[in-house]
Amino acid sequence: MTTAHQESLAGGCLCGAVRFELTEPAHDVYHCHCSICRKLQGALYPTYGVVARTGFRLMKGADNLTTYDSSDVVHRHFCRTCGSHVFEDTNYQPENVWFSVGTLDDGADPGGRAATERHIFWESRTGWYEPGDDLPKIIKFGDETT
Amino acid sequence: MTTAHQESLAGGCLCGAVRFELTEPAHDVYHCHCSICRKLQGALYPTYGVVARTGFRLMKGADNLTTYDSSDVVHRHFCRTCGSHVFEDTNYQPENVWFSVGTLDDGADPGGRAATERHIFWESRTGWYEPGDDLPKIIKFGDETT
Repeated sequence: MTTAHQESLAGGCLCGAVRFELTEPAHDVYHCHCSICRKLQGALYPTYGVVARTGFRLMKGADNLTTYDSSDVVHRHFCRTCGSHVFEDTNYQPENVWFSVGTLDDGADPGGRAATERHIFWESRTGWYEPGDDLPKIIKFGDETT
Repeated sequence: MTTAHQESLAGGCLCGAVRFELTEPAHDVYHCHCSICRKLQGALYPTYGVVARTGFRLMKGADNLTTYDSSDVVHRHFCRTCGSHVFEDTNYQPENVWFSVGTLDDGADPGGRAATERHIFWESRTGWYEPGDDLPKIIKFGDETT
């Protein structure tokens, strides 16, 4: 039997050329305020789900992805038709895939209770807009207090 | 004399291939919760500044843009090298340009006090994350109450 939650754990780019499935929930969710993610995704703080590579399956569209290396160790994959940034690989976490949670179908929750959710690179946030939620705000990875 | 605020009103994609300037501030800022913008930019609610077309100057990179029509009347332009969605044109507001505020340099405020700032398509937000700010939340354009 498939639960409603499991059914929702699929996603893709806007045009549909690239599709993926999650066979397990994200274990971390990061609302990222760094200047790189902000420029890359054009949003004030893009949100990423982090899932074990074994739980991420690219179903369609590998040949329609362009990869942009935002550094030597971060490789971002976007659909070359519609420009949706779908997921990224990092050299420092080869066991994980980072995906853009906005690409999940129907605005699905990427991890539910299984995920630890935080704001990251909080000190790099814009000076004019601040989300008013009560999630933890951390400065960098591994720092669990602000 | 140029003020610090005016100096900051420049932006572009992450890789630098596409650059623009604003010669006037945005008059509206929308945090958009619609499913199209969410998938296109991979964020939970991408933020757009709306500026008069006469106040937006594409300085560099027109030939490096790919246009994706997310509908018959909305034309989205992204850098084909790094995938940043930089700006969009609409048939229903030909006098305006909508730009992704995250592409402004240094997280600059797109409009300052000149802009009316709101959440839009609030009913389409995800069920699992909600910004806690006190900005107006509107259902659709032209509707100023929730």
